[in-house]
Amino acid sequence: MIRVGIVGGTGYTGVELLRLLVNHPQAEVSIITSRAEDGVQVSELYPSLRGFLNLAFSRPDVEALAELDVVFFATPHGVAQNMMPSLIERGVRVIDLSADFRLRDRVQWEHWYNQPHTAPELIDLAVYGLPEINRTAIRDAQLIACPGCYPTAIQLGFLPLLENNLVDPTRLIASAASGASGAGRQAKVDNLLTEIGDSFKAYASYGHRHLPEIEQVLGDVQTGAQLTFVPHLLPIIRGIHATLFSTLQQDGVDLQSLYEQRYKDEPFVDVMPMGSHPQTRTVKSSNVCRIALQQPQQRDTVVVMSVIDNLTKGSSGQAIQNMNIMFGFEETLGLNQVALLP
Amino acid sequence: MIRVGIVGGTGYTGVELLRLLVNHPQAEVSIITSRAEDGVQVSELYPSLRGFLNLAFSRPDVEALAELDVVFFATPHGVAQNMMPSLIERGVRVIDLSADFRLRDRVQWEHWYNQPHTAPELIDLAVYGLPEINRTAIRDAQLIACPGCYPTAIQLGFLPLLENNLVDPTRLIASAASGASGAGRQAKVDNLLTEIGDSFKAYASYGHRHLPEIEQVLGDVQTGAQLTFVPHLLPIIRGIHATLFSTLQQDGVDLQSLYEQRYKDEPFVDVMPMGSHPQTRTVKSSNVCRIALQQPQQRDTVVVMSVIDNLTKGSSGQAIQNMNIMFGFEETLGLNQVALLP
Amino acid sequence: MIRVGIVGGTGYTGVELLRLLVNHPQAEVSIITSRAEDGVQVSELYPSLRGFLNLAFSRPDVEALAELDVVFFATPHGVAQNMMPSLIERGVRVIDLSADFRLRDRVQWEHWYNQPHTAPELIDLAVYGLPEINRTAIRDAQLIACPGCYPTAIQLGFLPLLENNLVDPTRLIASAASGASGAGRQAKVDNLLTEIGDSFKAYASYGHRHLPEIEQVLGDVQTGAQLTFVPHLLPIIRGIHATLFSTLQQDGVDLQSLYEQRYKDEPFVDVMPMGSHPQTRTVKSSNVCRIALQQPQQRDTVVVMSVIDNLTKGSSGQAIQNMNIMFGFEETLGLNQVALLP
Amino acid sequence: MIRVGIVGGTGYTGVELLRLLVNHPQAEVSIITSRAEDGVQVSELYPSLRGFLNLAFSRPDVEALAELDVVFFATPHGVAQNMMPSLIERGVRVIDLSADFRLRDRVQWEHWYNQPHTAPELIDLAVYGLPEINRTAIRDAQLIACPGCYPTAIQLGFLPLLENNLVDPTRLIASAASGASGAGRQAKVDNLLTEIGDSFKAYASYGHRHLPEIEQVLGDVQTGAQLTFVPHLLPIIRGIHATLFSTLQQDGVDLQSLYEQRYKDEPFVDVMPMGSHPQTRTVKSSNVCRIALQQPQQRDTVVVMSVIDNLTKGSSGQAIQNMNIMFGFEETLGLNQVALLP
Repeated sequence: MIRVGIVGGTGYTGVELLRLLVNHPQAEVSIITSRAEDGVQVSELYPSLRGFLNLAFSRPDVEALAELDVVFFATPHGVAQNMMPSLIERGVRVIDLSADFRLRDRVQWEHWYNQPHTAPELIDLAVYGLPEINRTAIRDAQLIACPGCYPTAIQLGFLPLLENNLVDPTRLIASAASGASGAGRQAKVDNLLTEIGDSFKAYASYGHRHLPEIEQVLGDVQTGAQLTFVPHLLPIIRGIHATLFSTLQQDGVDLQSLYEQRYKDEPFVDVMPMGSHPQTRTVKSSNVCRIALQQPQQRDTVVVMSVIDNLTKGSSGQAIQNMNIMFGFEETLGLNQVALLP
Repeated sequence: MIRVGIVGGTGYTGVELLRLLVNHPQAEVSIITSRAEDGVQVSELYPSLRGFLNLAFSRPDVEALAELDVVFFATPHGVAQNMMPSLIERGVRVIDLSADFRLRDRVQWEHWYNQPHTAPELIDLAVYGLPEINRTAIRDAQLIACPGCYPTAIQLGFLPLLENNLVDPTRLIASAASGASGAGRQAKVDNLLTEIGDSFKAYASYGHRHLPEIEQVLGDVQTGAQLTFVPHLLPIIRGIHATLFSTLQQDGVDLQSLYEQRYKDEPFVDVMPMGSHPQTRTVKSSNVCRIALQQPQQRDTVVVMSVIDNLTKGSSGQAIQNMNIMFGFEETLGLNQVALLP
Repeated sequence: MIRVGIVGGTGYTGVELLRLLVNHPQAEVSIITSRAEDGVQVSELYPSLRGFLNLAFSRPDVEALAELDVVFFATPHGVAQNMMPSLIERGVRVIDLSADFRLRDRVQWEHWYNQPHTAPELIDLAVYGLPEINRTAIRDAQLIACPGCYPTAIQLGFLPLLENNLVDPTRLIASAASGASGAGRQAKVDNLLTEIGDSFKAYASYGHRHLPEIEQVLGDVQTGAQLTFVPHLLPIIRGIHATLFSTLQQDGVDLQSLYEQRYKDEPFVDVMPMGSHPQTRTVKSSNVCRIALQQPQQRDTVVVMSVIDNLTKGSSGQAIQNMNIMFGFEETLGLNQVALLP
Repeated sequence: MIRVGIVGGTGYTGVELLRLLVNHPQAEVSIITSRAEDGVQVSELYPSLRGFLNLAFSRPDVEALAELDVVFFATPHGVAQNMMPSLIERGVRVIDLSADFRLRDRVQWEHWYNQPHTAPELIDLAVYGLPEINRTAIRDAQLIACPGCYPTAIQLGFLPLLENNLVDPTRLIASAASGASGAGRQAKVDNLLTEIGDSFKAYASYGHRHLPEIEQVLGDVQTGAQLTFVPHLLPIIRGIHATLFSTLQQDGVDLQSLYEQRYKDEPFVDVMPMGSHPQTRTVKSSNVCRIALQQPQQRDTVVVMSVIDNLTKGSSGQAIQNMNIMFGFEETLGLNQVALLP
């Protein structure tokens, strides 16, 4: 049984960590911090946890956190990097769900996040926590930078094509859509039910912060990867659907077999039969990414559809998957929920 | 490990049984029947189960079912009663999620369901499967009649008041609302997203079939119980919210303590603090019923709010709770999921 | 053609006034104020108005407003009363959509709204703008206090019963539900899609501010009217559904005829056939209140269901209905839209 | 005042025609047919029309329809073509909202719709009813083939690029999403709220029936136009959002000016400022198509976002726009509703 801390537990990735951890057989949540809610029972803020967790929010305390086996950061970007040096120095292992250590290029990070990075010396220490490409490195990492939600869905969708140089890497297109929980639990007019319910729109088409992260990972796989990325906002709570377009440069490849082979040992990637259309509801509350392929009219544009639950495989579930790998637990431990359908 | 069969597994109570049973440590689903889907993999109809269940629908076969430890009926009313005599005779234990054996009065059943009852001799054998009032009888029962979804929420909300004769039993009012999954998975124009989305209405106010069931149970607790019951249809998938009104006949009773005492040993009833407003989302996917009390303006009308997930505590979860009691398992086994929030 | 001003036009009642007024054949919107958006084109904030309105928000200016024929206040409570004396003194007619002048009892107003009333001398001047009971007084009024949304639905539902002393006035019950636009366009976590989508709850059951307003009007009709009022929050944008319960004190009254007679000349009240269940979507975007009756099991509890669009008949539409009456226009002018269905 | 008939008025395009026509100052609905609902008042099926329309459904009668000025077909594909010869012969003008006469190539029609075409001799008579490219021909047409909903949004989005040969016509991509009303009012499990609510998916990516229609129109504009078209299903009622991708073949073109010029005289196309993100709710219930452009990272992929209400500009509103042109009315007559927002 390992002892776990969560920094910044009042948001949706925080409560999702708790939903999964309170039933995890090898982990116990010992500390959960929030300056704003210091002293308040977690189950008062989230009544879904009544009866499962008897713990109050506390102010973040480095010494107390350093006593634990692992600390999750479920904070907005810019927060984790401030506490990180003290924690790393004290030897505790850290899984950061925020964007602070995802980009290897500090200048790029500072450009996209529009602020100085306060712990650049730790960037090289961070391991990008996508188990499907980094499992070995994750095992021994002290600092995990968990992927963003869009990057998880889009990278898993494109990987087999790029790993095999099958498509033109310079004209990748991702038209993706996210449930509203991706925007977090912040008091903003833009996210009111009355503003986004019964409607649909694109946003940040000029450049979403997940773009450089995706291009970094895809560029590692195939040089020169460039993506046109248009995110959209769905009037649903959970779920990401990525529709990916790319131009085949070879004929006669059995794409379906390629994908099935690539992911056959992955516990959380499910390649559906050709012609399927994965629904976000088939992964709601689960850690699975479901993928399906299509080659419309047998032309040379291949379409990949990839769905995840943005709060689970897109965030907190993937963070726990990383934890399981880091501590030698079975990778699926505590993560075998069946999606909630209907 | 017990062996389980499900008759009529293509509907929402069927897939909810499967969601819970595939992770139940003491139960294994061996047979799941559907005439229409005979031979089709369950996970083809419900991709959420891909990787969890390798089983195809089969035609119902009494002999095969009789070999099992327990058989669930997840069928529309009128179906279970036809197979029931053969199964009961063969000694198998049965948990019926449908309405077939809920009413003790055959004439009343035939009136409300507008068809003859074909196994009236088994009505007396059936135990009403609400553990909060019938736990002992459930333990040894061969045939369980699981409560309806509205009855579960409304009965648990009224019980402490009626058990203590605190209110006028002849003027009980329930204004309740259900998510659309309560109507099942049937091809009906009335349940299209385009018909019921972004809208709200009452329905069946002239007399819903759950009315006699509720009055039967409440009448057992306090003679003469009469309910005005108006159900409403919510544009959500899961969840029932019952708002109950009754007239206090005594002053000075500490209702909050009364409720807390009544349910303090119940694993699946959560009495929230006075003044709370339980949200259906705090029980989504969980087997919990959350209840809160209010006495507006300190007048003599007491308001009880009671929420459940209609597919879990209102149906399949409660059925498994019954199974756990019948087979001597811990009552919460396989049912300790945290509600999915957000 | 009259010239119209709107004070506080950035909220939902403001944009609803604009939706209706830009197509009103006898009214022209000349001024729309907002301190926060001073100088911003209205159609920038509300792109639905692109091509319909070429007007920018301006800071409120009493002298400019006083030049107009009528000024609408679409402000939170507490705002209208501050500018009201200056406007009234200058002779301009005012239609206040807020709660400032709805309650005749200043002490009660200050209790429920928890602040001093700054223009108590104008309370007696205000005419309660429910045309179905006050049409004559509205015609010559200088200051109209438009009813709240819940009060409109609930009062229209109860009126015929109380006007004829048919029910016990001391045990009236209203279980009502509102779309989220009733909470306005404010940045609050509580109203995020992620908090209230796919869920349902009661709120303010201890005492909603519309309670004294409803009891004031119903008490005028029948002495001693007392209401238990439980509002609920629907995961829809527009619409109120009120389910009303009361105890009949007479037998043999033809309630259906009574309602039809009472409202036969009302252009915006539609009594549906006995046994109907009005859906909120049948009034979405329209100024109609639809009402249906039910007497379940022929017992002595009568159920009335009443639906409106909270932003139209519940607010801005009714305000324009008042304007039409005040200026001698046909009462339905500019208000004859068919509800948006589906 | 012209006299109007509607064949097949029970579906969503039928009720949308009625919503708009009952308030049209120059049109009167005289006949509305439905075999299934023969004799039933229209307002019984659609209570939103109570008070607006006193007309019952009748069985289709060619002679009676031929007496009218114009007949709308709001039927599934395959129906209009059967009655069309008799009506055309009798000289009545017809506006067909279905797909029967959209494709000029009979063989292609029969391939995509998988049935013989029964009135191929009328295909050449039909004018494609997209006013933005066909206004003159529409004026004198006897038979209008109204565009599909996806084609309207996608064609208006691509037109200025293709008319000016600015992009590679062979690699056009449309990732589009539609509200559920696009699937019509049919009793299908797939369209239940419980199946498609709170979820998102692509569908028909192998080939949607609107694909040949779009390629026909775009191919007329620029030879060789080929489209990869992936439609998605939104859990909303009304609205289409098309996100279009194409590869620029020229530098330095001011795309924003180009679009603004192209549509400056179009009453129902609104080009928003560069960098905008049109929301479907800004066109809900209105006949407007809103378009915005983006060139992410200044690379050579141009993104066009185009939104319409699928039942209005995507179907019934556009049909009435055609009617206005055909009968010499002002093109916007009866179509100037402001979108319903919120």
